[in-house]
Order: sequence, then structure tokens, then C-alpha cells
Amino acid sequence: MRGVRQVPRPTRLARSLVHRGPWFSFYLDTVRFPGGRVVEQHHVLEFSQDAVAVVVVRGRGELLLVQSYRYVIDAIQWEVPAGTLNPGESVLAAARREVREESGCETRDHELLYTYYPMNGIADKVFHVVRCRAASDTGTFDRNEIAAVRWHTGAHVQAMIQRGTIKDGFSLTALLLHWQAPRRLPRPRPKA
Amino acid sequence: MRGVRQVPRPTRLARSLVHRGPWFSFYLDTVRFPGGRVVEQHHVLEFSQDAVAVVVVRGRGELLLVQSYRYVIDAIQWEVPAGTLNPGESVLAAARREVREESGCETRDHELLYTYYPMNGIADKVFHVVRCRAASDTGTFDRNEIAAVRWHTGAHVQAMIQRGTIKDGFSLTALLLHWQAPRRLPRPRPKA
Repeated sequence: MRGVRQVPRPTRLARSLVHRGPWFSFYLDTVRFPGGRVVEQHHVLEFSQDAVAVVVVRGRGELLLVQSYRYVIDAIQWEVPAGTLNPGESVLAAARREVREESGCETRDHELLYTYYPMNGIADKVFHVVRCRAASDTGTFDRNEIAAVRWHTGAHVQAMIQRGTIKDGFSLTALLLHWQAPRRLPRPRPKA
Repeated sequence: MRGVRQVPRPTRLARSLVHRGPWFSFYLDTVRFPGGRVVEQHHVLEFSQDAVAVVVVRGRGELLLVQSYRYVIDAIQWEVPAGTLNPGESVLAAARREVREESGCETRDHELLYTYYPMNGIADKVFHVVRCRAASDTGTFDRNEIAAVRWHTGAHVQAMIQRGTIKDGFSLTALLLHWQAPRRLPRPRPKA
């Protein structure tokens, strides 16, 4: 074991704005790090809003997945409901709204499981993971965003992860946290 | 349960390049989605290289964490060793190199645990998670990048996650996958 030592902060020598958009601003910073090393162009993406992914649990541990098309990677994938917070919206309110919009499902008993940075080398984006219970289901969802909505057993979703078919990191991390977190909600049955 | 239906692909109507850099190119695309909805400015970050995070296991389940400063979020955090692949470099070779550079530790028995997209709404970046065993330790590491190197028991790292102190998503996901994955490597003891 080697000791933890205090790390002096670096100094921003210059900043240029490359792009200001509704989702993020993109800067190139010139940064002098402790010890003297200068990075001429440190890429910085500053996001305006956090995002939330939601693990929705039904009955004895069924989990809600939605199938959505991702333009950037040109792929249709199973994910948990997720999306960006509206300005001024709380994490739990955004979780409730996103699940409703993407699945038609009303939810209750929301709990924040975790907060993290998905790509802290380049972006200050913050991801929250919320878990909740299904309350009722209208069956109506946004077909612009979502191709299909399906309940799976916990064992089935674990098998999807064993096969590597959950490719969306936000969903993957949310599901792993659900199984890791203290069981305030009913535990999915080991065998469906 | 609602049926899965085939989703037609959208059409790119226009693309403008905002920035081309060593790490990624940033485009604004105009996209017509099936059903007719047009997104005037779809943000697309196309990354040149994948990245790898490495869970290094020693003895009966000790785990290697490194403390690094992240400029974008202005924070010093405990993470697993991680970094970007060099052009032409394999995932496992990059894993070995990153662990050596960031900790001075030589490793063996590398296995790819998972591959995923950390932010597929906006970026095509690919993250790989590799697990391996510690072989030997030179004690020499890159002090520009890393402030401290430390071995922790599995129980201690689990407690860090229970307290929410692992804030780097790549590390969080890698560690959760390590505990979820079939135990080809020795399982960390439940109690240290």
C-alpha cells in the first residue's frame, strides 16, 4: 500500500468555446498541471442537465425494459427507461415522468440508488439511477422514441447481461446496482 | 407484454462538422425519423478509439484502485486503472499497458468481461471491461496521471460503493461486473 498524498489543482490558462448547444457546451481549455505539464487542448463537455435511468420492479421481481433506436450507434437496443431532467425538475420526478412517457407505466416508492459520472475524462454529465415499483399501466407510450415495452423476469435480464446483449451502459449499470443494492424492494426470484 | 416490432431506420438529411480532434469528431446531423419527425440538430460524437477499464485481482480477492485527478469535474477520485486504446492495439494489450503505466503492476490471465456504450444518446464511444490477476509489482507509475495506488479488500470496495464514493461510472460498472461475472478468478471474501 502506498500513501495517499494531497494533489494540487491545475490552472486553466485559456478557454475557447467550440460550440454552445441545448444539451452541452464544448470548450477547449489550455491547462497547466502541477509539475508543469501543459495540455494545450483539453476537451471539456459541460452538460446543462443531469439524466436519470429507472429500474422499475413489478410483482416478485419482474423488470421493465423498453426497446429504443439509438441514432448515434445505429442500433435498436433493450434499455431501462431513461432520459434527461427538465430544468428545475427533481431526479425522482424526472424518473416518474420518463417511465410514464416511455412505457405508460405509473410508478411509486422511488429511491435514488446511485449518482455517477459516465465519462469523467471528457464530460461533466451526471447520471442518476432510481429504483421504483410499478403501480398501474395505461399501455400508452411515445412511439416516436420507443419501439416496444416488455416485462422480463430478473433471471432473464441476468441472462441477457451474461450474453452481453445489454449494450447501453446506463441500463447495464442501473441493473447491476439494483442487484447489488440492499433489498428494500422484493428480490427477483433466482429461477423464474 | 407487448410485441417487438421491426423499427425502420432514420435518414440523415444533412451533416455539418463542428470539430475534428484527436479524440473525437463532433457533427450536427439533420435526421428524419420514421413517421416523419425531423431532428434539425442531432449531436453526434464519433470517437476514434475504444477505452478499457481493468479490474486487477490479487491473492484472495484484493482489488487495485488508483487515485487520479479529473480536470473536467475538478475532483480526485478512486478508480480502477483505465485508458484509451492506442491505434491498432488489442483490448487485452491496452489493459496490460494501462495497469502497468498507472500502477507499476504486471498482470496475467486477462479476460474480457463486457463491452458497452457509456453514452449512446450522443456518443459512439465503446468501453471494454477486462479482469486479470496481479503478477508482479515494480512500484513505479506515472505520477503525472496518478496520485496514489492502493490495494483494497473486496469488502472495502463494496462498502465504498454502498456509500456512493466510487463516482467514476467506468470503474463502478467494471467492479459491479466483476462481482456479477462467473467466478473464473477467486471470489473476494465476504468478510475481510
